[in-house]
Amino acid sequence: MSKNVAILGASGYTGAELVRLIATHPDLRITALSGDRKAGMAMAEVFPFLAHLDLPVLTKIEEIDFSTVDLAFCALPHATSQAVIADLPRDLKVVDLSADFRLRDPAEYEKWYGKPHAAVELQKEAVYGLTEFYRDDIRTARLCAGTGCNAATGQYAIRPLIEAGVIDLDEIVLDLKNGVSGAGRSLKENLLHAELSGGTHAYSAGGTHRHLGEFDQEFSKAAGRPVMVQFTPHLMPFNRGILATVYVRGEPQAIWRALADRYRDEPFLHVLPFGQLASTRSVAGSNFVHLGVTGDRIPGRAIVVAALDNLTKGSSGQAIQNANLMLGLKETAGLMLAPVFP
Amino acid sequence: MSKNVAILGASGYTGAELVRLIATHPDLRITALSGDRKAGMAMAEVFPFLAHLDLPVLTKIEEIDFSTVDLAFCALPHATSQAVIADLPRDLKVVDLSADFRLRDPAEYEKWYGKPHAAVELQKEAVYGLTEFYRDDIRTARLCAGTGCNAATGQYAIRPLIEAGVIDLDEIVLDLKNGVSGAGRSLKENLLHAELSGGTHAYSAGGTHRHLGEFDQEFSKAAGRPVMVQFTPHLMPFNRGILATVYVRGEPQAIWRALADRYRDEPFLHVLPFGQLASTRSVAGSNFVHLGVTGDRIPGRAIVVAALDNLTKGSSGQAIQNANLMLGLKETAGLMLAPVFP
Amino acid sequence: MSKNVAILGASGYTGAELVRLIATHPDLRITALSGDRKAGMAMAEVFPFLAHLDLPVLTKIEEIDFSTVDLAFCALPHATSQAVIADLPRDLKVVDLSADFRLRDPAEYEKWYGKPHAAVELQKEAVYGLTEFYRDDIRTARLCAGTGCNAATGQYAIRPLIEAGVIDLDEIVLDLKNGVSGAGRSLKENLLHAELSGGTHAYSAGGTHRHLGEFDQEFSKAAGRPVMVQFTPHLMPFNRGILATVYVRGEPQAIWRALADRYRDEPFLHVLPFGQLASTRSVAGSNFVHLGVTGDRIPGRAIVVAALDNLTKGSSGQAIQNANLMLGLKETAGLMLAPVFP
Amino acid sequence: MSKNVAILGASGYTGAELVRLIATHPDLRITALSGDRKAGMAMAEVFPFLAHLDLPVLTKIEEIDFSTVDLAFCALPHATSQAVIADLPRDLKVVDLSADFRLRDPAEYEKWYGKPHAAVELQKEAVYGLTEFYRDDIRTARLCAGTGCNAATGQYAIRPLIEAGVIDLDEIVLDLKNGVSGAGRSLKENLLHAELSGGTHAYSAGGTHRHLGEFDQEFSKAAGRPVMVQFTPHLMPFNRGILATVYVRGEPQAIWRALADRYRDEPFLHVLPFGQLASTRSVAGSNFVHLGVTGDRIPGRAIVVAALDNLTKGSSGQAIQNANLMLGLKETAGLMLAPVFP
Repeated sequence: MSKNVAILGASGYTGAELVRLIATHPDLRITALSGDRKAGMAMAEVFPFLAHLDLPVLTKIEEIDFSTVDLAFCALPHATSQAVIADLPRDLKVVDLSADFRLRDPAEYEKWYGKPHAAVELQKEAVYGLTEFYRDDIRTARLCAGTGCNAATGQYAIRPLIEAGVIDLDEIVLDLKNGVSGAGRSLKENLLHAELSGGTHAYSAGGTHRHLGEFDQEFSKAAGRPVMVQFTPHLMPFNRGILATVYVRGEPQAIWRALADRYRDEPFLHVLPFGQLASTRSVAGSNFVHLGVTGDRIPGRAIVVAALDNLTKGSSGQAIQNANLMLGLKETAGLMLAPVFP
Repeated sequence: MSKNVAILGASGYTGAELVRLIATHPDLRITALSGDRKAGMAMAEVFPFLAHLDLPVLTKIEEIDFSTVDLAFCALPHATSQAVIADLPRDLKVVDLSADFRLRDPAEYEKWYGKPHAAVELQKEAVYGLTEFYRDDIRTARLCAGTGCNAATGQYAIRPLIEAGVIDLDEIVLDLKNGVSGAGRSLKENLLHAELSGGTHAYSAGGTHRHLGEFDQEFSKAAGRPVMVQFTPHLMPFNRGILATVYVRGEPQAIWRALADRYRDEPFLHVLPFGQLASTRSVAGSNFVHLGVTGDRIPGRAIVVAALDNLTKGSSGQAIQNANLMLGLKETAGLMLAPVFP
Repeated sequence: MSKNVAILGASGYTGAELVRLIATHPDLRITALSGDRKAGMAMAEVFPFLAHLDLPVLTKIEEIDFSTVDLAFCALPHATSQAVIADLPRDLKVVDLSADFRLRDPAEYEKWYGKPHAAVELQKEAVYGLTEFYRDDIRTARLCAGTGCNAATGQYAIRPLIEAGVIDLDEIVLDLKNGVSGAGRSLKENLLHAELSGGTHAYSAGGTHRHLGEFDQEFSKAAGRPVMVQFTPHLMPFNRGILATVYVRGEPQAIWRALADRYRDEPFLHVLPFGQLASTRSVAGSNFVHLGVTGDRIPGRAIVVAALDNLTKGSSGQAIQNANLMLGLKETAGLMLAPVFP
Repeated sequence: MSKNVAILGASGYTGAELVRLIATHPDLRITALSGDRKAGMAMAEVFPFLAHLDLPVLTKIEEIDFSTVDLAFCALPHATSQAVIADLPRDLKVVDLSADFRLRDPAEYEKWYGKPHAAVELQKEAVYGLTEFYRDDIRTARLCAGTGCNAATGQYAIRPLIEAGVIDLDEIVLDLKNGVSGAGRSLKENLLHAELSGGTHAYSAGGTHRHLGEFDQEFSKAAGRPVMVQFTPHLMPFNRGILATVYVRGEPQAIWRALADRYRDEPFLHVLPFGQLASTRSVAGSNFVHLGVTGDRIPGRAIVVAALDNLTKGSSGQAIQNANLMLGLKETAGLMLAPVFP
């Protein structure tokens, strides 16, 4: 029951990660790869680490015959994605990895992304792709919007606590440590090895990061009233991984219990024993999430630490997990690869 | 007016950093170096990067003739330090880099370090070495206790805010990102390159880190009432630098102003323009501290980011700054080296 | 047709890498794990990145019931391995990852390892595990000796050139760049992140590295006369990967052709187009080897660059490839995982 | 006797390194800084690590009044440099850090750089800036050409051996490991942290690297007959440092002796005891060069390992050393900063 998939935008990191994971997926077959500026090139030229695979040559999107494609992964830049998806066949299943269909409210989209949404109808149709919280909707979705990688990390740590009512909703501080692949393959001075390695800095501080739109939408929905978190990401001198250190108010054991209960049957979410904290090194290269909880010496405060790989569970692994559901495959198919350590 | 100094414990990182800085110090001359397990070795063997210097051979402490020494730097492990200093001539000026003389209250020392202090009389005599806040005391001190590197970073960011009364004293969250040299040259699996590089994790979370003793002591003193901060350090895959991201309640501009006013005349503290945040890369290898402030979208909240080099301003550079004062030298002598970037 | 395997020495990096690879192997099941100093611990404690797996608790070797084990991987330190294997049931298939059974000549073993071999009979029985050159022997072997990771890298680059007679046998210079995981989990100052990151140095230079014993044995056998290479490894600030830069005399196109011909049908060896060179980043985390050849401006000289992951193709991946052969499984089973990039 | 200097091209890494070093130079004062695309910006914006310094704003070159400038450092890109220097006052002392004036023969320049030299008269006037070999010429030079960083490293290792006649001139293999700052601040995919960290690869292999022009010129001159070396650089995942592993034929002790004799009185060149090899970590951030020699098990072969910091001794430190000579200052002024470790 092999399914044919196309990857639009295969020359970036999330596109390459899709190829990496599908390489050992038992039920997916890549029948088309697009990469506008690199159309005509072999993937082995763009990403020599994929040289062992027999892959289609990169083409332009308009050259793809979608009639034999069961599902398209869209790993294009924000804003480009909505225009491209609007032109795809309306019955083609699509998993989008961009930010374009994450926000339900067009006004919120415009607020965070600075321009009106160009495909409002599609936006209505889209399902939010945080698998563990929207599994049933995703199973029947035509268009699934991948979450932001920061948004996924923060939600895995915080959402069950809101649902279980075990934390103070007005006192949530989310300090993120972000591996640099989350910034993509863009050519910026601060992403050069010479400038990034050897230190760290905060960015998009003060409530300006776009993933706050997702946190607001999802946490407010889960709480049934507006919730705003304080969120600061930091650029880290490593390639894969996000570590979220979450400062919350509540009873630490109850907080741990809420996470343990919520994720007991989840194949990819692993709650560590109380008092043990997560490390990005223990999930890198995999679709797994590690979560840990400890109390503080100040009574009534707790720390939740969550770790995932931004390219896998934070993006391309999540996308395949959702595609598996949409295609009627086993949810974990192709995704049980162990992390790579050291 | 060259002064003679001895370095006790010269085979660790803070000892080597003292030698590095003194190498171009105009007024200090190293006349003795101790390194118990490495006694008899040349420094060039222990630290080949110091091979160009003409240095004394490492000896045992008891072999040093202190009669010609003007000041001893004591870069020994915690607990060892108090025993060694108790045996030094009572009129010898000493700058201690260990944790042994940081806490004023013997009960606090015992609480955080797990055993009674063995030199309580000396503890009383010691001055706390956060230069910018104890300059006059240090100038006349006989024994100066270097601060913890985390304690220095957090205090540079928070202490002026307490003094100026511009923040809520009960709502301070301090998230630290710590370069690995702070852990010293100790042989532990999690400090190996294979295990540390490529990711990050939190440690000593939940209010268990010993530097909290210093925060409690100093912040409570500055506030005139008990102050407890929530503090989580994270081990980072880089060698030098601490970045403190501090979440506080208060008016952001007033917070920025309090820092800018407090540090206006300080040679080593640099407050960035409002809205611009600090990076560890901009201070590595130097005695400088960078501080930045920004507001949050949630009214009444602000973020302060401070960066320093844990081995220099967080330890050995601070020690030399204090020694300069104690010896009647220019405070900045030998310490104006620019950071190293990239 | 699932087979039961035991891993002896599962608390080191090659042991953990075996577990990582077997986690998604379709035909192998881990039924016992030993780790002497860590006996009684769960693997999730020793290696949190394996926490998602349902694995046996670490035991002492003597507690393992080998009657239901089809094959044992022995990932123990050199010298320990020969003693342990001598005590295992004589009909148990064994793949050894140590250096103990690589050298055919007991005198050579003693020369390079500094003491007499303690299991000379077993040494005679062992087959050398460079799969692509000893496939038929391995298929029927009882005891297979894994190659040194450097020895594998150098042989993949050079051996076909000797066999094809296209290079000068007396003029081979092999400059290796070695990822630090090859040094294992041993606690040494020069393996600390603080000391290793940020630079490089040569080690075991001048013909003193033990893997020279393997080069001598195998190259001389392939050539039918003594061959000695000049070999210098360098410790690199990355975790996985060996890059071999080989300086040889011969016609560059003929050299490229010899490699391309030799490896045409090999599933894991990939010869890049002439003029294109290999990168360790393109094979990290995988069992693949990349090889590239270019000429030099000095006529009659060529450069061969080979890259592999020392923990996978250089050690544990190779071990599983050999185990697959010995157990009658598909040679590539469990080993087609794509490299991880970035 | 403070001298005024201008830095043309101060927004790149070598420009910033000049500022870093001059910051603690006792006799140089920066009176002008140019940076065409960043004209009008403060250095603290372009390089926040220089924020503690009181520096001129970046201007365009044509806005600089050279009448009060004693010497100009020209840290501009190749080809730009020759045009700019041709327009400077003819009596202005200039230290050029580009490749434009390194080669004596215009035909050689055109061969390696792909176009005719645009300032042939100036090319004739220029002195080659390898201080330890051209000290007297540099002292009286008007225009001094900085060497290539690879060219410096290789020459420090090899040149005394040619002069002493202790090696076979036709059998020199030079394998270089290059820190990434040598590639400058250029925006290329392969220089991104995500792509560069975690591995290594060879580049410009096969005798195509432009620094070969310098090797040919200088080694042939030293030997009195043509000498060609085989040279392969490798891009390393660290920021500062070049390690040269040189494979030569000759008697190892004689080779060590030739280096030790040649550099005995040199302030920046340090020959390690025989058998001990150099590490880039021991010179990073400094103007020092470490050199080591060992023999090989193959009689008549030796390995020389040289290490320097490409931005300091390989470029900006060398430039200041030459400027010191040209300005009649102490040669080592401002350059005795110890390396930074860890």
